Order: sequence, then structure tokens, then C-alpha cells
Amino acid sequence: MGTILSGMRPTGRLHLGHLLGVLNNWKELQDEYQCYFMVADWHALTSEYEDSSALRENVRQMVIDWLSAGIDPEKAIIFRQSDVYQHAVLHLMLSMITPLPWLERCPTYKEQMQEIKGKDLSTYGFLGYPLLQAADILLYKADTVPVGEDQLPHLELTREIARRFNYLYGAVFPEPRALLTASSKVAGLDGRKMSKSYGNCIFLSDDAKTIRERIRSAVTDPQKIYKDSPGRPESCNVFAYENIFLSESCSEIEAQCREGKLGCVKCKGYLADAIIEYLHPIHESRKHYEKEPDIVDRLLADGAEKASVTAASNLSLAMKAMGL
Amino acid sequence: MGTILSGMRPTGRLHLGHLLGVLNNWKELQDEYQCYFMVADWHALTSEYEDSSALRENVRQMVIDWLSAGIDPEKAIIFRQSDVYQHAVLHLMLSMITPLPWLERCPTYKEQMQEIKGKDLSTYGFLGYPLLQAADILLYKADTVPVGEDQLPHLELTREIARRFNYLYGAVFPEPRALLTASSKVAGLDGRKMSKSYGNCIFLSDDAKTIRERIRSAVTDPQKIYKDSPGRPESCNVFAYENIFLSESCSEIEAQCREGKLGCVKCKGYLADAIIEYLHPIHESRKHYEKEPDIVDRLLADGAEKASVTAASNLSLAMKAMGL
Repeated sequence: MGTILSGMRPTGRLHLGHLLGVLNNWKELQDEYQCYFMVADWHALTSEYEDSSALRENVRQMVIDWLSAGIDPEKAIIFRQSDVYQHAVLHLMLSMITPLPWLERCPTYKEQMQEIKGKDLSTYGFLGYPLLQAADILLYKADTVPVGEDQLPHLELTREIARRFNYLYGAVFPEPRALLTASSKVAGLDGRKMSKSYGNCIFLSDDAKTIRERIRSAVTDPQKIYKDSPGRPESCNVFAYENIFLSESCSEIEAQCREGKLGCVKCKGYLADAIIEYLHPIHESRKHYEKEPDIVDRLLADGAEKASVTAASNLSLAMKAMGL
Repeated sequence: MGTILSGMRPTGRLHLGHLLGVLNNWKELQDEYQCYFMVADWHALTSEYEDSSALRENVRQMVIDWLSAGIDPEKAIIFRQSDVYQHAVLHLMLSMITPLPWLERCPTYKEQMQEIKGKDLSTYGFLGYPLLQAADILLYKADTVPVGEDQLPHLELTREIARRFNYLYGAVFPEPRALLTASSKVAGLDGRKMSKSYGNCIFLSDDAKTIRERIRSAVTDPQKIYKDSPGRPESCNVFAYENIFLSESCSEIEAQCREGKLGCVKCKGYLADAIIEYLHPIHESRKHYEKEPDIVDRLLADGAEKASVTAASNLSLAMKAMGL
């Protein structure tokens, strides 16, 4: 059985993009691999250090979303990064052998420095976050890492750091391979990338009323001006959702739309019904965890304990190899 | 009682420069402060990562030198940095808030990058070592740090990082003050800085025969060509040592030298006798520790345990403040 490390930054409640792009994938992986699913709270601080007051609550809400979506602590090890100090130690050790240019030339680094406005990201920690990722992965000797295409350079960096460590101190770390995952299948309701900061998301925890309101505001085919104008589903964002959530009836919807027999308001109603139904079990599950918040704490403590066993053993090997 | 943090990189056996410049100072400080004396093995790796095979033995030899020179584990807490993982965690946390330029502009950084040849120091860890020092100091809330003048910029960086942390997350860390220590009082036997890499040292563990040989090769006043030439003690490196180790008879030596009544070979004999006598109790003490190597291991384990109590408590405060 292979070993997988994957994680998410706890930046708040999760949305449909996370569910379709990550969590549903994790649900399958947890049956096939020994999975370590990490709440990357130290990573969150690399960019959110100026206001970290919501961090603890964000961790809780995210874990509730994970559990509600079917991530199973009986199958996967769910833990918070900062509960397993070995991540910080391995990060420090690997920092000694990691050439600065490897980090400075990381394609995501300069991109994010430019894209993320209003935050001072020229910190030592932000430069080092792909190195922290490498430590996260190598600490569990993960052989497989599910990544989107944009994260491939980071995984390549992890492989290079593993090679360099092994070259200098003897074979300790496997070079993890990428398990390419399709990027998120849905755009935001306005057609841009689904992102909390764009306000174009449906959150897993949104109630039925909110879901209906959000979908009512979704952008459809801009050429379909009246409800009986013929529409172009291939240019309609709502139809993209229906492809996923109404797959059985979507050829019927497509035909009616093209013929001008289906108005957008009605069509959005179909979608809202489908998404509300799809999220129903997740909502039910969430209610259970919200009623007993201690469960999340206990579960994270338990996960940290399990993760620490592997982490401590692998760190000890690495320290010995390095002469410490 | 104030708290002091000071450390040395375990780069091998210590020499007279360390004794006069650091250890004799520590011996006084341990009576007046709660002292944490740290074997900085992670720091050693920032520059010695390419060959760390001797690290463990270097730690042992250095600690034996400390103990033999009178550093007292009943008074001071003597520990190895890598035994107290909280250093790595605080380093990671502080990395989030430390602007890169603060590290890049550190005067010692570019200096060392240029000076230290034959080693690839353009690593993430080497850039970050003043930050690791900051973590070392703040972890114990040390209010006092003995430093040489060349280390003042590092302490200023520590103070700035403490201020920034306190500003962002609330008052956690005191700003440590510098306790300026005179730089090493003796030059090397060839007149350059005393340094292992120049081969111009007298090591604390050198036996009498070696000490005599080393002093025989010392550079004296270059204008004193014959044993009965008049010499200029102010231009004589051996006389600088005699000022320290033969302070009572050095005015007599000075007079005889100026009058050409004292040859360098004889004069060096006086110095060798004095240094051998000075180091005698250190040698006796060293023999004891060499016979029972377990003592050093037990002592370091005990020191790590004591240091960890304070480290864990202060780290916990910092993590809470940061929202972790």
C-alpha cells in the first residue's frame, strides 16, 4: 500500500470547488493508500501572518467540512501540521542543504508575490514554503502526492531535495511521484475561478436558501436575453454545473435551452434543487459535528498521535544520517 | 536574576582563544545569571552541511572542554540545540514574520559568503542562521546576551524580530540587551587571528610536549635576529601571551628583552612552562571525562530536559499568541 500526503490550508469554510477538486478525490484515495491528510496551519501563516486571529476557528470549520464530505478518520490520518513538531525540525534540517536559487526560481513564488496584493509577502517564511511542503511530504516518506498541474514544480523541488539529502547523507527518503488530479471542475458562479475572495462560491455549509440566492445570481449565456431566447449551453456557466449535478437530465435541459423553451430562472431552480439534494447528507453530517465540537478536537489529537509515530521514526533516521 | 543564552558551534576542540574570550567569561556569568549554554549543532550545519560526519564527536569534545574549563552543570544549563526541538518550531514561526531584506542585509551574511571559500553557502539555511539565533534567544526569553562587537547586528535583528512579534500578536518576548564582551585577548602564534584553520592555535587539550613545540614556532619581534639582539616586546606576539600568563614576571622579562639579555628560545620556554601550568587543572579534569564518556551524554540529556521545560512553556505562549 502506497503512502500519500496531502493537505489544505485552513483559510475558512470549503466550497464546491474544494469538494469536487479535492475532497471527492481524497475519498477514493483513502481506500487505496495510507493517507495523511494535513491541516496546513503553518502554511496558512506564510501568507496570513498579519491576521491569524481566525486560524483556530478556520481549522475547526475545515475539518468539519472534511468529515462531513466523507473523509474517514478510521481510514486516513487526519492531523494538524503544528501538532507534529517534526515538520518544523525536518524543515530546518532540509534548509541547510537547499540552495536559495531553487526557491527563488520556483515559478509560483514570483507569480504569487505579484498576484497577492495588499500583503507583505517578502518574508523568509513565504520564500521557504515549498521547502516546508517538501518536509511535510518526506517526513512520512510519502511515495505519492496528489497534485494539480500548477503544483508540479513544487513536487519536483521535493524530489530534488530528497535526491540531494540522499546524495549527501545516504538513502533515507524516497522520491515521491505525482498523482495528477484534474483541476477543479467548476468555475465560480461568475465564471471566474471559484474563490472565497471573489465571493462567487457555494460553500458546503450554505443552507438551502443561501444556495438558491447564490445560484440566482449566477452568470449564464450573455446572449440569452429573454427567457424564451434560444441559449447556448456551451457558453453557460450554470449548464457546466448541471453537467455535474444533473447529469441524467442535462441532455433534456440542453435541448430545451437551445430551443428557447427553458428560461434561466427555471433552469437555475433545477440546479439549486440538485445541489441542495447533493449537499443534504453533508449538511446532516455537519449538524452532528457542530453539536459536539469536542469530537473535532479529539479527532485531531488522535490523528496527531498517529502521525507523530511515523514522523518521529523517520525524523530520527534523518537526524542520524545527518550526523546529529 | 537575569537570563542569559549563549552558545558555540561544535567545530572541534577548543583553543586558548575560546578559553580567554568566552569560557572564562561564562565561568563568571554562571554565578550571576541563569545561564543557558548551548551546543549549537544546527548552527554548525548551516556551514558544515557537506561533511557532518564528525559532528557528534565534535559535540562531545567541546562539552568536555567546557566542563574541564569550569563550566558547571550545577549552575548553568548545558544542552545541545538539536535535543530541544522547540528551537526549530520557533524558528519556523518567526520565519513567517521576518522580512527577507532583514536577513539579506545582515552585514555578516555577505561578508561570510565572500570570505568562506570552497563551501557552497548560498543555501536557505545559511541565509536564515541569524533568525535561528533569534529563536534560540527568544525561546528562553533571555534578557541578556554576551556578544562580541561583530555580533551586535545579529542581536539587533533579534530585538527587531521580538518587537515585530509583540506588535503583531501581543507582548510575548522581551528585547534582549547586549552584554559586550572583549574580543579574544590573544592572537594566534603567527600573529593572525587564532583559528583552527590557520594551524596557529594552542588547544586546551594539547599535551605539554605539543604546547612546547607550538610555542617554539611562534613569531616574535622580527627585528630581534640574534638571541642577544635587543627586542621590542610591544612588537612580540609571545610577549602578548606573557602579559596574560606571566603577568607577575613580565616587567622583568620586558626589561631583559629590551637589553638583549633574554633570547627568544629561553623566553618561549618561560611561556610554555606558564601555559602548561595554567592548563594543568583543565587537563586533569579532561582525563576524568575522557575516562567516562557516558558522563557527557547523561549531562546533555539532563540539560536538554531542563531547557525543554522553559522552551516548551515559552513556545506554547508564542503559539497561542499567534493563533496556532
